[in-house]
Amino acid sequence: MRYSEMFLPTVREVPSDAEVISHQLMIRAGMIRKLTSGIYSYLPLGYRVIRKLEQIIREEMNKAGAQEVFMSMVQPAELWQESGRWIHYGKELLRFRDRHDHEYCLGPTHEEVITSLVRNDIKTYRQLPRNLYQIQTKFRDEVRPRFGVMRCREFGMKDAYSFDVDEEGAEKSYEKMFNAYNNIFRRCGLKFRPVEADSGSIGGKYSHEFMVMADSGEDAMAFCEKCSYAANLEKAEVSSPERKETLEQDWLPLEEVLTPDVRTIEEVSGFLKVDPQNIVKTLIFSGDGKPYAVLIRGDKDINEIKVRNYLNIAELELASDEMIKDVTGAPRGFAGPVKIKIPVLIDYSVMGMVNFVTGANKEDAHFKNVNMGRDFKAEAFADFRVVTENDQCPRCGGDIKLARGIEVGHVFKLGTKYSKAMKAVFLDKDGQEKIMIMGCYGIGIGRTVAAAIEQNNDANGIVWPMPLAPYQVIITPVNVNEASLTETAESLYQAMTAEGIDVIYDDRDERAGVKFKDADLIGIPLRITVGRKDLAEGRVELKIRKTGEVRLCPLDDIVKQVKEMIRQDMDFNIS
Amino acid sequence: MRYSEMFLPTVREVPSDAEVISHQLMIRAGMIRKLTSGIYSYLPLGYRVIRKLEQIIREEMNKAGAQEVFMSMVQPAELWQESGRWIHYGKELLRFRDRHDHEYCLGPTHEEVITSLVRNDIKTYRQLPRNLYQIQTKFRDEVRPRFGVMRCREFGMKDAYSFDVDEEGAEKSYEKMFNAYNNIFRRCGLKFRPVEADSGSIGGKYSHEFMVMADSGEDAMAFCEKCSYAANLEKAEVSSPERKETLEQDWLPLEEVLTPDVRTIEEVSGFLKVDPQNIVKTLIFSGDGKPYAVLIRGDKDINEIKVRNYLNIAELELASDEMIKDVTGAPRGFAGPVKIKIPVLIDYSVMGMVNFVTGANKEDAHFKNVNMGRDFKAEAFADFRVVTENDQCPRCGGDIKLARGIEVGHVFKLGTKYSKAMKAVFLDKDGQEKIMIMGCYGIGIGRTVAAAIEQNNDANGIVWPMPLAPYQVIITPVNVNEASLTETAESLYQAMTAEGIDVIYDDRDERAGVKFKDADLIGIPLRITVGRKDLAEGRVELKIRKTGEVRLCPLDDIVKQVKEMIRQDMDFNIS
Repeated sequence: MRYSEMFLPTVREVPSDAEVISHQLMIRAGMIRKLTSGIYSYLPLGYRVIRKLEQIIREEMNKAGAQEVFMSMVQPAELWQESGRWIHYGKELLRFRDRHDHEYCLGPTHEEVITSLVRNDIKTYRQLPRNLYQIQTKFRDEVRPRFGVMRCREFGMKDAYSFDVDEEGAEKSYEKMFNAYNNIFRRCGLKFRPVEADSGSIGGKYSHEFMVMADSGEDAMAFCEKCSYAANLEKAEVSSPERKETLEQDWLPLEEVLTPDVRTIEEVSGFLKVDPQNIVKTLIFSGDGKPYAVLIRGDKDINEIKVRNYLNIAELELASDEMIKDVTGAPRGFAGPVKIKIPVLIDYSVMGMVNFVTGANKEDAHFKNVNMGRDFKAEAFADFRVVTENDQCPRCGGDIKLARGIEVGHVFKLGTKYSKAMKAVFLDKDGQEKIMIMGCYGIGIGRTVAAAIEQNNDANGIVWPMPLAPYQVIITPVNVNEASLTETAESLYQAMTAEGIDVIYDDRDERAGVKFKDADLIGIPLRITVGRKDLAEGRVELKIRKTGEVRLCPLDDIVKQVKEMIRQDMDFNIS
Repeated sequence: MRYSEMFLPTVREVPSDAEVISHQLMIRAGMIRKLTSGIYSYLPLGYRVIRKLEQIIREEMNKAGAQEVFMSMVQPAELWQESGRWIHYGKELLRFRDRHDHEYCLGPTHEEVITSLVRNDIKTYRQLPRNLYQIQTKFRDEVRPRFGVMRCREFGMKDAYSFDVDEEGAEKSYEKMFNAYNNIFRRCGLKFRPVEADSGSIGGKYSHEFMVMADSGEDAMAFCEKCSYAANLEKAEVSSPERKETLEQDWLPLEEVLTPDVRTIEEVSGFLKVDPQNIVKTLIFSGDGKPYAVLIRGDKDINEIKVRNYLNIAELELASDEMIKDVTGAPRGFAGPVKIKIPVLIDYSVMGMVNFVTGANKEDAHFKNVNMGRDFKAEAFADFRVVTENDQCPRCGGDIKLARGIEVGHVFKLGTKYSKAMKAVFLDKDGQEKIMIMGCYGIGIGRTVAAAIEQNNDANGIVWPMPLAPYQVIITPVNVNEASLTETAESLYQAMTAEGIDVIYDDRDERAGVKFKDADLIGIPLRITVGRKDLAEGRVELKIRKTGEVRLCPLDDIVKQVKEMIRQDMDFNIS
């Protein structure tokens, strides 16, 4: 397209309300504009990227046997009452009434609608399995929308739902989606990892998040340097150690020491001149209203999700001062396992520790030389901690590394959560009524685009991976008032367009510097500059946005060269 | 795709709540399912048609220089307050509050959002003209949704908005869209007409509706047999007659006659033995609360929109009994122009009438031998009537014909209605601030698909025009348990898929009759049947859905033949 005709308002200043780089760059590059809190309009440049992503998603979903449907944004309350979520969903579910005073919500997700659709039209095992997907607008009334389209209220999502006759089928459906997602993000030209994710009370190994790697990402993940193990930090496991008992002969006598106003690990360590590795932290939690003590080595952190999953409870939070006082007899900061009357959960990191320090359940007092077995019972041993760098991989024992990323996709085995509540049943081969097994699979559309920018940018702007680039090439004549330059630029533009290349012809009457700045900001992978001196030698300049490399190319070969470079950049060897 | 793997639930029975044929067939063909009143889910077959239509629209919009954007469904109240529509829109605008108690609505249209977007980012004439479009979901809280996706509450729409520096530019933008719309509907393979439409108080010639012709359509239109004139019946003009005065010597004396309880034209005609052509109907209207009399020949009907536009008022309705009594001194049924004290508007049809009958403004009385000029003043002569068959074309005098259709698109010159209220201004060449001139252009997506079905169906189901057909070909082996038949069908399926043909392979283990019924119902243009006898002779059967024609084709030539038939059916000579 001719730049002079494009609605592409770029901005030099960094918008004051944009905290993250992708948000800043999407505004500055004229991709999006804010309409109101958490609601954005996509401008032509931004929407082209969205459409390229959607096309890749469609192709891979169709290849995986999924079929595209389109469901509504407005959903009737009745369906959500059937699934039980009308009450449980909370305020993110935006509810309202129509002119006839009927209750509705704006769909934040479509499990209810798709389950209702399928239960009415699928009656026998011969109609299964099925996988139905859509690319459609969702609304979640986030309390504090932020980061542009990364955490907004109205957003596009690809959501898919699979229906199977049994667990084995459901596993196959899950695997197909897992593979499709790998293909999708690979074809986008993104560095990403599928990581094991917490699947909450639905359980099992069947949940993976797809993370686009970016140091600025809000999610942390752990991965093994040696094998393919990778997990959300919330979920990442520690390899279970061999059970090693300590030797009674090493145990020193328990000793109470005065520690006035000394509460944190750092304070205790400093005051008693003891390494954090020789201190055991005792945290009191309230789990569904009941108190629990969790022990962990002083230099480690507790992963509350692991504790909650272990206890199989809905709510877990740090105990109130009141509850702490009640169960330990002391204020916060002096809890310990000795003679405590509540269940004690012990993290693996405590295993093998001898003569360690704990709180004494008494104000301004700690114990030295505490030993498990003698001073308290070693029961409920498990993995309760946040994985750290150089922990051992639970699969192969290799070194664990940490990284940050942005969750852009999630594959999830739902089991019968919705099909049971909403009676999505079928007749099996023997004429028996059975409940369908479901899976759900989501990709955040705008979020993936934002994540691609978080991963691919520099001081000058966006650096699009070729498959997502709104345009692949930008042609810039140095001066639009020199006919020889514009004639060449124009004919290159025509030739490339004819070859199916997405190309901008920057025909604006602006200084070359201004044009180059815009080209860099909007992140076009290949920039062709038509200048007088080069042209006299039958050449044009080709600059590669990603590497900064500049080449002089013969004019009569440039279309072919560019086409080949694009082909290479689009080829991700998807089977 | 293999039929056995498709989510394509066809239904034999006609759904009881579906009044129109397109609604019935979309349900029966497994294209849509109702979620709740006026809200539908598109199933895979239905969504494929939607996507084909959207693709045609995108290509033609882009070709016309429009650029695609994507705006939100949820819109803040503030913008609607700025334009003044927050108050005036009525209950179709669904309003609600978010968790922070801010007011929003679900967008029924996007004039406010686009105007707000453009005014922030377009500042000078150099950034104009621009035409921005989107294909996006709208919500209108219809009081009585009906006819399936034809008049539903949540629906897809292509809406475009143009911004120009002056009237001349706005006309060009309008013309581009007018041409693009012609291309779009032609490429869909539909019989349609652009018709002049009433543009209400915004005025001018700049409003056309695009009507898909269908006897079942809810809109009536008039068109000329000789020239290209066509208009919505509401808008269709009558050629203005030459002014002909009647001759005084022909006038008979005015005579009051008793007409007890004789009120309607039929009653008067029968009672007085006078042709309706010799009676003048006098209707009393209340226009913005004030009374008006409108005269028309007894066999014609008044077009209230013409009266309203002539008077340039907002509301027009038939007067109440009370108002009639007040202005005529008589009950309803006896009004006439003689000695009436309110403005009298006279339709062209009254011109040239001599010695006619009117009411006498007195209970149970009419006048005979009324003559304009003598008995009342001939002022405010204009076209106030509904056009009928064989009226004369206002352009060329040819015969007018009437037809029915379904409005699927509308191009509309908005002028400065929104840009003025919302201050969408720019600096012109001389540095003067000016208001942008806008146009808006809509196509109902689901509505176009439904209209295509209303136009193209028979007793057996849908008859898709090739460009909108969800699949172009269906291959049916007569018996899936005969390997030779399925092998041939399978290899045809592979070969056609490789050629880019959209093909269903009906691999279901069902009787051929059941398969044929489904193929007809879902309306696939070309059906290939693989049977034992034909195959022995190296042939397959090709049936053309539209004509019912059956051909036997050599197996080794069928792919080529089918490809050529599709090519011909897709070729609409769009420039």
